[in-house]
Amino acid sequence: MNLLFRLPDARATEQVDRLLTRPGLRIERIVSLGQANPPDFWYDQAEAEFVLLLAGAAKLRFTDERVAHLLRPGDWLDIAPHRRHRVDWTDAATPTVWLALFHR
Amino acid sequence: MNLLFRLPDARATEQVDRLLTRPGLRIERIVSLGQANPPDFWYDQAEAEFVLLLAGAAKLRFTDERVAHLLRPGDWLDIAPHRRHRVDWTDAATPTVWLALFHR
Repeated sequence: MNLLFRLPDARATEQVDRLLTRPGLRIERIVSLGQANPPDFWYDQAEAEFVLLLAGAAKLRFTDERVAHLLRPGDWLDIAPHRRHRVDWTDAATPTVWLALFHR
Repeated sequence: MNLLFRLPDARATEQVDRLLTRPGLRIERIVSLGQANPPDFWYDQAEAEFVLLLAGAAKLRFTDERVAHLLRPGDWLDIAPHRRHRVDWTDAATPTVWLALFHR
């Protein structure tokens, strides 16, 4: 089982694969290809999210920060519950692969 | 915070960095450089372990399987509690970076 080979086609829409589900824990692999959140859309999640970029490039922004985080492979963040954030940009030229781990 | 740049020097011993600790969840980045478990050593862990190889190469073996898993970047496994396993080999030429997530 590999997260980087034979990626699903994300041209039309982001591709989400659930890897593991346990009480209080959910691990997903997300593949993006140029997608971003609509203007003024913000995630407001009840769970914390540990996110690790595995491939590609993305910009992640928080309401409480002025500048977006440019994420490259190996970059990670732990997003506290209800800390509002959005994806400003993902690379349209190459797939961006995220490991997202939702936890309590 | 990046898991792949400016890696700690693992020539003498494996380098473990704890990224996150929550009740029932612990996330670590482990850097190996040629280390392996001693002959006949087996891990027998009370926790489950989701392990993802981020860089390098390693061989992971289970008592209940005849052949070791050759792990490459992007390969992942979820190891059940008390499923005995060992690291047979890690690449001595280039750092092997593991994301290890211990969960209940």
